[in-house]
Amino acid sequence: MNAHNRPAPESDAPVVAIVGATGAVGLALIHSLEQRNFPVGELRLLASARSAGRSMSFRGNKVPVQELTEDSFAGVNIAFFSAGASISRKFAPLAVDAGAQVIDNSSAFRMQDDVPLIVPEANGKELDAAPRIIANPNCIAAILTTALAPLHERWSITRLSMSTYQAASGGGAEMMEELREGTRAHLNGEEFEPKILPHSYAFNIFSHNSDVDPETGYNGEELKVIAETRRILGQPVLPISVTCIRVPILRAHGISLSIRFDEHVNTASIRNALNSAPGIRVVDDREANHFPMPSEASGEQDVLVGRIRDDLGDPSGRTSTMFIVGDQLLKGAAQNAVQIAEALRAKAAA
Amino acid sequence: MNAHNRPAPESDAPVVAIVGATGAVGLALIHSLEQRNFPVGELRLLASARSAGRSMSFRGNKVPVQELTEDSFAGVNIAFFSAGASISRKFAPLAVDAGAQVIDNSSAFRMQDDVPLIVPEANGKELDAAPRIIANPNCIAAILTTALAPLHERWSITRLSMSTYQAASGGGAEMMEELREGTRAHLNGEEFEPKILPHSYAFNIFSHNSDVDPETGYNGEELKVIAETRRILGQPVLPISVTCIRVPILRAHGISLSIRFDEHVNTASIRNALNSAPGIRVVDDREANHFPMPSEASGEQDVLVGRIRDDLGDPSGRTSTMFIVGDQLLKGAAQNAVQIAEALRAKAAA
Repeated sequence: MNAHNRPAPESDAPVVAIVGATGAVGLALIHSLEQRNFPVGELRLLASARSAGRSMSFRGNKVPVQELTEDSFAGVNIAFFSAGASISRKFAPLAVDAGAQVIDNSSAFRMQDDVPLIVPEANGKELDAAPRIIANPNCIAAILTTALAPLHERWSITRLSMSTYQAASGGGAEMMEELREGTRAHLNGEEFEPKILPHSYAFNIFSHNSDVDPETGYNGEELKVIAETRRILGQPVLPISVTCIRVPILRAHGISLSIRFDEHVNTASIRNALNSAPGIRVVDDREANHFPMPSEASGEQDVLVGRIRDDLGDPSGRTSTMFIVGDQLLKGAAQNAVQIAEALRAKAAA
Repeated sequence: MNAHNRPAPESDAPVVAIVGATGAVGLALIHSLEQRNFPVGELRLLASARSAGRSMSFRGNKVPVQELTEDSFAGVNIAFFSAGASISRKFAPLAVDAGAQVIDNSSAFRMQDDVPLIVPEANGKELDAAPRIIANPNCIAAILTTALAPLHERWSITRLSMSTYQAASGGGAEMMEELREGTRAHLNGEEFEPKILPHSYAFNIFSHNSDVDPETGYNGEELKVIAETRRILGQPVLPISVTCIRVPILRAHGISLSIRFDEHVNTASIRNALNSAPGIRVVDDREANHFPMPSEASGEQDVLVGRIRDDLGDPSGRTSTMFIVGDQLLKGAAQNAVQIAEALRAKAAA
């Protein structure tokens, strides 16, 4: 590590904790803090007793992983949680009591009225600097609302309809491994016993593996996308159609989206609005047939948007359609959490 | 081969030709003729000079591949074409002149008014027994309209909206190989130079690789799906929204579909209609989270339909949504062609 990519020491650099540091999102959090040059005075990596004692690399230094306990948050300014809803429910309030801002990647508090659910590009203005829990949205909701923010700002959205193409990373490092190992076995003509899923993931797609509501037929992921998107956009009864499908890709989610506005909005205006918005890269080259792909979105901070066109299925001409791809571990999780922390620091400094 | 799986010799068993016998659909045609016990007096396998001299297996016998020439169709009763639109344009009229029924898998004649475009479950009644060209639809249109047929028969469909999850087989045997070999290289950390596509297919999804209309932004596949679905359903101006995406699976296509009716249709009625229709298997177990998957649709003659539910995005309550998976090489191509031949024989016998 040299002086160039290390942020200048700041007297106010916060003490940062990561709960669930050794998981797929934990690793991505460490990466995002580095990538975005987020000031860190001390990094406290917390995990279960099983992982304690390991060490992980941050800005060229080895940082030990400690066991998460009730006393882990003394002196912590910002605590990122990515160890599942039950851990968040138990430990996030303790971190707030210790004076930390908690940014929680689980679904534990996302629908709680007094917990802001934040995508900085879409509703960052809802943040204030008081120590509290702030919820980081579901990955699809985060990627989707980043792309919607500049459209929502200019035009009135009256309906959303989407089908998703979701990566293995949403199921954690274990599901990514199951996809790789199952695919390798398939190519070699070998038997493979899936451990996470009840069926093969190799060269296969399937309805999202969250529980399905027996009454409505919607799965947990779809219900989250509907509820969280409405909250982030501040449109509590927005009609949203969504089907969540997993596809055999590793870490970037795709969304095939139709947006109904209350008027006709032409494609050029949409492209212009997206082009000038933060966090978005328009990839929409019709001649070269070059549109958003996971191979180009993986590891990318921006959400890629393309295939922007009128929806021929709406005779009123008020619907536009597009294809969106974003890194599930970055904008869909870790990076959005770090962006929330950045926004909090900006509020505190203001 | 024993007497049990060989159809009894029939005096009227037709002479059958397959043009493009060595391609992915050609192989599937041979398989479908066997699987459906279609009577074949003589099988004439036709291909380019490059493939002539090989032999292929049919019902336990070796059948030589012959070079396709203008004289190939003497005595042929049924000619299946699966060698691309330019071969069909040149040779299909010659086959008709020689007295054959032509069932053409290419897009050459699909939008020609005097050429029936047929999915037997949906519009088989349009067939008559005269020697002519009959077009076999685009794979998505065939799989889609099989699932729609029993709904279209009972209720009025006013709009379709879909996103596809298309397999490599739609791009032929070469694209299937590119997916396999690119994935193998990716898993081994090796370089891989794609031959068919301008980018990697390994663990990647991308907008369909057909040319994109620079004005509207729709690609060739999407325009085919719209035009052919309208023709097969006999609804020439039906509003259809479609986004075609390729996913890294081998030979079964998925379709995430919303159907707007002119009234509310409840989920149980839809399920009942689908359950009693030919060519469809309902796979819709909410409790077990078991829905249509390519791993179960590949090699299957039936189209699998599930995730049947009200579309929460339409406040009028008139839209239902479902997920459909069908084998691209079978119902999406070869099997539908053989079913057309079966329907023609039934008409001739009637």
